[in-house]
Amino acid sequence: VRTSELQTPALLVDVHDLEHNLATMAAALPGARLRPHVKAHKCTELARRQAAAGHRSFTCATIREMEGMAAAGLGEDLLLANEVLDARRLGAVVDSGARVTVAVDSAETVRAAAAGGVREVLVDVNVGLPPCGCAPADAGRIAGLARSHGLAVRGVMGYEGHLMLVADPAERARLTAECMALLARAAADVGGDVVSAGGTGTYAVNQVATEIQAGSYALMDTAYAATGLPFRPALTLLATVVSAAPPASEIQPPWVVADVGLKSLGMDHGNPTVPGATVWFCSDEHTTFAPDDSGSVRVGDRVRVLPAHVDPTVALHERIHLVDGDEVLETWPVDLRGW
Amino acid sequence: VRTSELQTPALLVDVHDLEHNLATMAAALPGARLRPHVKAHKCTELARRQAAAGHRSFTCATIREMEGMAAAGLGEDLLLANEVLDARRLGAVVDSGARVTVAVDSAETVRAAAAGGVREVLVDVNVGLPPCGCAPADAGRIAGLARSHGLAVRGVMGYEGHLMLVADPAERARLTAECMALLARAAADVGGDVVSAGGTGTYAVNQVATEIQAGSYALMDTAYAATGLPFRPALTLLATVVSAAPPASEIQPPWVVADVGLKSLGMDHGNPTVPGATVWFCSDEHTTFAPDDSGSVRVGDRVRVLPAHVDPTVALHERIHLVDGDEVLETWPVDLRGW
Repeated sequence: VRTSELQTPALLVDVHDLEHNLATMAAALPGARLRPHVKAHKCTELARRQAAAGHRSFTCATIREMEGMAAAGLGEDLLLANEVLDARRLGAVVDSGARVTVAVDSAETVRAAAAGGVREVLVDVNVGLPPCGCAPADAGRIAGLARSHGLAVRGVMGYEGHLMLVADPAERARLTAECMALLARAAADVGGDVVSAGGTGTYAVNQVATEIQAGSYALMDTAYAATGLPFRPALTLLATVVSAAPPASEIQPPWVVADVGLKSLGMDHGNPTVPGATVWFCSDEHTTFAPDDSGSVRVGDRVRVLPAHVDPTVALHERIHLVDGDEVLETWPVDLRGW
Repeated sequence: VRTSELQTPALLVDVHDLEHNLATMAAALPGARLRPHVKAHKCTELARRQAAAGHRSFTCATIREMEGMAAAGLGEDLLLANEVLDARRLGAVVDSGARVTVAVDSAETVRAAAAGGVREVLVDVNVGLPPCGCAPADAGRIAGLARSHGLAVRGVMGYEGHLMLVADPAERARLTAECMALLARAAADVGGDVVSAGGTGTYAVNQVATEIQAGSYALMDTAYAATGLPFRPALTLLATVVSAAPPASEIQPPWVVADVGLKSLGMDHGNPTVPGATVWFCSDEHTTFAPDDSGSVRVGDRVRVLPAHVDPTVALHERIHLVDGDEVLETWPVDLRGW
């Protein structure tokens, strides 16, 4: 199958860029030093490639991701790096034979984990980003509470997510060290041997975490691409140009319209990028853009659009096509969508 | 089933608000005066309620929506208000017995319609918004081209989408009249009896269209709610509060975190609204917000979040729950997602 035969919009992953990214990260953080985050791709077939690169433990953001990874045989060590108030479905994943660890940051989430049949937890510690996590000074108390409910406490996690896109690497390293000092203090109070933290932006500068929860490194996006990391944008959205301003139109200047829009692109980081063109705006199923070389793009042409944010983009699609140039090597279901 | 038993995130549609919206629009634009746009809800069960309100013709934005509507028995008169370069799947919908009309705005899209087995078209005319549509002066030529390919030309369409959210109703009416003058001129050149245009923002002021393509009126959202229309926000996203800043935290002020984020909310119109609270930001699976009355929201509480943009929000979900207060009346699959 050639990409020209695909219906658009179609998500494409370049096999060479993907393999470069997986190999680069596996060299930097081999084996269990990396706990790949599946929220970035929601695809068990891609997770299987990460496992083949040596990483057997995974991070998830939703119960559905945990269930799907276990069902795919990738449940050796799954962390739900998120709080839940109803853990019964996680208990069922435990019963299926997978290893399940869930984040807790309150009495309520400790009770929910125990009641739902989960056996292992990490204490989620707030290291500066206002989503979840207890205060660092409170982590020891939460750990004690968890143990009193019969839960094994494997250690701590904390996510310095607000630092991932700090442009200056030295500043990113300095701020990461500040956050991780908080986490290290909490880890001493909590006990256990896991300090789980970090992400694609800080994988190389986080000196405290025993394991890094990076996800975006595999596919990357235009937001991360600006940070000087050694990973390549591997994901594009194949589009068809469906309309163009006529050359002698009353309504100038010369724009064209591709059939990808805000329903096929995550928009929280802004507009996508079209190489060799200026993007004007996205509507439901359209991206309107002006090619630098007017007349160079015609109705019926295919273009590859770069999403500003990969994670929510992938979540909008049913499948990913692994491609080598214009050849489709494999088609993978995005099977971890939903909740 | 009660809403308290639903797993979150869960999309809820209030039955009274929905019925108010459908009845209000059906009174203003009865029967074929409205061609409801299914892109706003992507749900054939909701379309069935619009059909029960008297509207038997529908507007779609994607081939998948056309296929799904036809398969659901709602294919009496389906318009794909969008250009396609490969119409073969539409030809299959024609063969299944549905009436299919597709927008064309170029020689390429005319040829694609004819080659794909489509028999009826509307000429899509640009009335000011740079997505698709030919120049008004070119519409007659496109119609002739379509007829020369054996296609029946039912008339014209044009979408004044850039006017939907103009805040001042009088200004919105004046600008709509300007756009529709362009469309009327094109309609005279094209022939046929259909002038399809408009949307929720202009349904009451568009004096030229023979049919209005409104979609958002059924569910509404916070962006449209600011325009003074007589429709009620009917859709909310049910969330669970999964984390809260501890009262004596080192990291003040008092925020809470709900389990809905940029993967369950369309973000192109900005952050969602949480009644009685200030939303700080959304991350993948979280919305962080500060309640006006700190301490009023606790871990485990359920909150109903109002999306800023309904269309892309619905597209992220597998199902919609029709509710009366806390009672779940029906659960509908969002069965028109994808492409």
